[in-house]
Amino acid sequence: MIAKIAILGASGYTGAELVRLIATHPNMRITALSADRKAGQMMAEVFPFLRHLDLPVLQKIEDIDFSNVDLAFCALPHGTTQAVIAALPPFLRVVDLSADFRLRDPTEYAKWYGQPHMQPALQAEAVYGLTEFYRDPIRKARLVAGTGCNAAAGQYALRPLISAGVIDLDSILIDLKAGVSGAGRSAKENLLHAELSGGTHTYSAGGKHRHLGEFDQEFSALAGRPVQVQFTPHLLPMNRGILATTYVQGDPATIHRTLFDAYAPEPFIEVLPFGTLPSTRDIAGSNFCHIGVIGDRIAGRAVVVSVLDNLTKGSSGQALQNANLMLGFDEVAGLMLAPLFP
Amino acid sequence: MIAKIAILGASGYTGAELVRLIATHPNMRITALSADRKAGQMMAEVFPFLRHLDLPVLQKIEDIDFSNVDLAFCALPHGTTQAVIAALPPFLRVVDLSADFRLRDPTEYAKWYGQPHMQPALQAEAVYGLTEFYRDPIRKARLVAGTGCNAAAGQYALRPLISAGVIDLDSILIDLKAGVSGAGRSAKENLLHAELSGGTHTYSAGGKHRHLGEFDQEFSALAGRPVQVQFTPHLLPMNRGILATTYVQGDPATIHRTLFDAYAPEPFIEVLPFGTLPSTRDIAGSNFCHIGVIGDRIAGRAVVVSVLDNLTKGSSGQALQNANLMLGFDEVAGLMLAPLFP
Amino acid sequence: MIAKIAILGASGYTGAELVRLIATHPNMRITALSADRKAGQMMAEVFPFLRHLDLPVLQKIEDIDFSNVDLAFCALPHGTTQAVIAALPPFLRVVDLSADFRLRDPTEYAKWYGQPHMQPALQAEAVYGLTEFYRDPIRKARLVAGTGCNAAAGQYALRPLISAGVIDLDSILIDLKAGVSGAGRSAKENLLHAELSGGTHTYSAGGKHRHLGEFDQEFSALAGRPVQVQFTPHLLPMNRGILATTYVQGDPATIHRTLFDAYAPEPFIEVLPFGTLPSTRDIAGSNFCHIGVIGDRIAGRAVVVSVLDNLTKGSSGQALQNANLMLGFDEVAGLMLAPLFP
Amino acid sequence: MIAKIAILGASGYTGAELVRLIATHPNMRITALSADRKAGQMMAEVFPFLRHLDLPVLQKIEDIDFSNVDLAFCALPHGTTQAVIAALPPFLRVVDLSADFRLRDPTEYAKWYGQPHMQPALQAEAVYGLTEFYRDPIRKARLVAGTGCNAAAGQYALRPLISAGVIDLDSILIDLKAGVSGAGRSAKENLLHAELSGGTHTYSAGGKHRHLGEFDQEFSALAGRPVQVQFTPHLLPMNRGILATTYVQGDPATIHRTLFDAYAPEPFIEVLPFGTLPSTRDIAGSNFCHIGVIGDRIAGRAVVVSVLDNLTKGSSGQALQNANLMLGFDEVAGLMLAPLFP
Repeated sequence: MIAKIAILGASGYTGAELVRLIATHPNMRITALSADRKAGQMMAEVFPFLRHLDLPVLQKIEDIDFSNVDLAFCALPHGTTQAVIAALPPFLRVVDLSADFRLRDPTEYAKWYGQPHMQPALQAEAVYGLTEFYRDPIRKARLVAGTGCNAAAGQYALRPLISAGVIDLDSILIDLKAGVSGAGRSAKENLLHAELSGGTHTYSAGGKHRHLGEFDQEFSALAGRPVQVQFTPHLLPMNRGILATTYVQGDPATIHRTLFDAYAPEPFIEVLPFGTLPSTRDIAGSNFCHIGVIGDRIAGRAVVVSVLDNLTKGSSGQALQNANLMLGFDEVAGLMLAPLFP
Repeated sequence: MIAKIAILGASGYTGAELVRLIATHPNMRITALSADRKAGQMMAEVFPFLRHLDLPVLQKIEDIDFSNVDLAFCALPHGTTQAVIAALPPFLRVVDLSADFRLRDPTEYAKWYGQPHMQPALQAEAVYGLTEFYRDPIRKARLVAGTGCNAAAGQYALRPLISAGVIDLDSILIDLKAGVSGAGRSAKENLLHAELSGGTHTYSAGGKHRHLGEFDQEFSALAGRPVQVQFTPHLLPMNRGILATTYVQGDPATIHRTLFDAYAPEPFIEVLPFGTLPSTRDIAGSNFCHIGVIGDRIAGRAVVVSVLDNLTKGSSGQALQNANLMLGFDEVAGLMLAPLFP
Repeated sequence: MIAKIAILGASGYTGAELVRLIATHPNMRITALSADRKAGQMMAEVFPFLRHLDLPVLQKIEDIDFSNVDLAFCALPHGTTQAVIAALPPFLRVVDLSADFRLRDPTEYAKWYGQPHMQPALQAEAVYGLTEFYRDPIRKARLVAGTGCNAAAGQYALRPLISAGVIDLDSILIDLKAGVSGAGRSAKENLLHAELSGGTHTYSAGGKHRHLGEFDQEFSALAGRPVQVQFTPHLLPMNRGILATTYVQGDPATIHRTLFDAYAPEPFIEVLPFGTLPSTRDIAGSNFCHIGVIGDRIAGRAVVVSVLDNLTKGSSGQALQNANLMLGFDEVAGLMLAPLFP
Repeated sequence: MIAKIAILGASGYTGAELVRLIATHPNMRITALSADRKAGQMMAEVFPFLRHLDLPVLQKIEDIDFSNVDLAFCALPHGTTQAVIAALPPFLRVVDLSADFRLRDPTEYAKWYGQPHMQPALQAEAVYGLTEFYRDPIRKARLVAGTGCNAAAGQYALRPLISAGVIDLDSILIDLKAGVSGAGRSAKENLLHAELSGGTHTYSAGGKHRHLGEFDQEFSALAGRPVQVQFTPHLLPMNRGILATTYVQGDPATIHRTLFDAYAPEPFIEVLPFGTLPSTRDIAGSNFCHIGVIGDRIAGRAVVVSVLDNLTKGSSGQALQNANLMLGFDEVAGLMLAPLFP
């Protein structure tokens, strides 16, 4: 079977990444691409690296014939997505890559995003898209809400540990290093090459980053009581990749074994040997997540380092993995591309 | 059919690139990997980005059982390759990525590489591996000599123009910009990140770069008389990619049409619309070559810009394309991966 | 004596570079900084790297008290500069860093900049600011027009050769590699880190780059007859630096000696030994220009490679050098800072 | 007065950085440069960015006439330095940039560096070179031991807080991001551009980094009881700069005020307004250290972020600042260069 795919918001990095991945997917064909301000253009004009592909012309969303679509990826900006998805045909399967349906509690949404949620009924229907932990609901879902890329990196390090009760819940600290493509393709002075290359700085520090809403929701649900983590993201002069250095209190060997066992059956999550820590270079361009654990010289403390590509496992690859489940395809179809190194 | 593949010299960048590409090839399986100094190690130790693959342990070449190999890629250093290939079983198909068999005339080899050729009989057997122009001989070859990566970039820009007689042969000038992975993985002070990032310089300028031997051989053969081009390579702070800016005298529109027509049937060579010039970012990690043509304000002068990834279309991708032909597979098998951007 | 300095347009890279250089200048004090849209802000908010300096608050130009200013640097966008300088007090010394007064012939200005020149009388007064070749007129000038950064890099390679008549005038070709800070600080998609890092492409190719107007004007004047060069700029993933690879026909040794002799007395222009070519890394952050010459294997052809920092010797350093002359200071005052490496 | 300066180990990055800084120092003149394996070469061959300077030829240490030297900077590798300094004339002032004399307790040296200390008497004489905290002993010292660059970044964030007793001593955690020049100029595969650019990873994690010896020594001395911090360094694709993200427990406003007051008189340490965090880009190439403080959403937790240039304030700039004190010069002489941005 070949599923017909629409990508809404194809002129951004996550939209282009979806096209890149679907290009070698055996069971998917792209039948519609939207980009409101660039409607009428060819994808090859907007992203010349995709010029070898035979793709539909960019359209406005309202001009798409959704009767010819089995599943839509929605890669639109936060905030505007709710109305767009509400206006789609109610039968259409949707994988959303925005933040609009990640937080189950509309109050939390309003707190972190600064505006009330306008589609609480749709929110109630949405399944949180961290594939390895929501596989069954995702298989049956009509609407899946992709996770934040930083939120994914942190959760892969921590969820099995919280579930297993092997770490202290009140001293979790995530120091995260993120590449710049996570900030998107919009023209901003602070994202210029001349501003970013050759240096680093924090952003949204002090507990203000919105992905904390996801951490709070997920970790508290797992623990059965409120859990708050400390989280400081840094922007690095690299295009792809996230490295999350997660500091926890617990027995390092137990922590490693817990992660190793939890992810043993997973096709995309690799837990390295104890004491070996990963590099973002080894997962760039792929759907893999590498995780390493080391004990500190201070007894009872461990460092868990997780890396993933923000555009792949952190967003578009995750979205495709979820779509595979929703459409009954092999979960790894189109996703076994090796990383690109050097 | 599944062909059994050996990669000799798997601990360098071109060896690893071969593994990356073959990982999703439908008709090839890697049965042997060699790396003399790292024999006994797992590929995942030498290249952690390949750790998701089930690969044979690294061996010394002399320990490989070649009865279990249909084709060997030889990704060894220049100079040492001749003896290695001479010692391989005589029935074994070989795609060599070194410079050892590129120059048909041993005198030219001695001139450019500073030592006599030790295997002139093997040299006589070798087919030059620029796929699009040697397809039939490659199909029948036992030994194919991969081209220089810079030599490929320049030839894609120029061969159809020389063949068609639409440019002046005595004023060809190639100003080339190359990424650093072309220099390999050996530890040298001048390849350190601190030395290279954020700047540029020429190398092997003044007509000293060895790929000139290939230009001389191929262009003279095409023209039926000696042709010498001027060639200045520059090293750029980027890991992958070559951009060759080729200056020619002739009618720009004719030049564009000649290239467009010549490459129309080619799956990997894309000639852009007249006046549009390519970027290395749009082919990184892929087997594509993009070519653009523009006329200068000075009448009768044109600029041809060609880009390719030195590790893919410039070496390992080319090698795989040639191996596909030698083994009777679809020429593009394993090679339709989209570039990685950003 | 301490000269009182105003910098108009202090929120761009060339404005900030002027502040950086003047910070250690023994004879200058900054008494006014303008940035229309950021008026009222501190320089440390706009450029935190300057926060250790005691600087005036940013103002609108119309709020500056020019009775307290001896010389103004004008680092404003092309096109708007003419009106601004026309409105300044007529006694005020001005060093302009825009393109508005570089072309002596208003027809040429209209041709390259697409709009008529509005201040032809001021243009008649302006002295072209390539210090080493206009030293005496600059000393007496009220208005100096800074050169294009690319135009400077090309002229340093070529002027002595044209003057001495040692190269063919009809086959000059400049292939230039430029860092991204030359494109300024305005937020544009094509200048984002994610778009630029790790790759390269041409821009304004085919004889369309505006600095050709300067080449035409200057080289034709030197030669006493029309001279047109071919010029192809490339954008590189580096913040600072220009490398111009200039291809000429003539005797390489004569070319080297001509350049060596011409620049022997110059404090900022270093001609390397014959056969040695320079790197942009060796002049970054400084007012130095390094020039190297090599002969090609094809007799009668030479390659001249010149490097300079586009923000220093290519604009703000040049401007300061000119201001030193206009104010009677030591020409090198404030400009002997060593490059920054690595 | 002009002091005569020798730099031992001038072919590494810290040696070259010393030359760069001393080039504009009003009271110092370099009279000897050593580089054993490059003896006989000109500095311009080893570091072309310094070619505008008139410098002595590189010598072997044993060939230097130390009667013509007032102070020697010793920028040699760890381990070999002890014997070299022991063999210098006993009257000679020495600023050492290696790790050999940083740890007052030879047992600690043996523990962190894996070999016994061979010059315990010299060690007893050495003063730890963190200028702002050892000013008076440095003024009188003959031998000053420069600090580790990471050790400096962490101590600037923490020393005033430990002294003032405003943070919990048992939960200090430093997550550090370092540029690659800190790893030196030796040719190693893992420092190649192709290996490092575009990614990040940890190094010496788990409490194994040698600068922990300095943290233990200094923080325990300040606190009057053993203090152990947790410390995880990361390597970033940038040449210069360290950003230390230090996590502490205490009142954020008090922490900020404590740092602000402590550093108010310091010429090189800038504490940013509360809630503003620094970037490495704003100190690159300079002797400045910027420090910012923010409170976390979790009450009682604060993040202190300190940035400095590892080659300047982290080693050679610090060394020069100490030399100024030892020679009775203005402490900031030669060190007020503005950072280089972009």
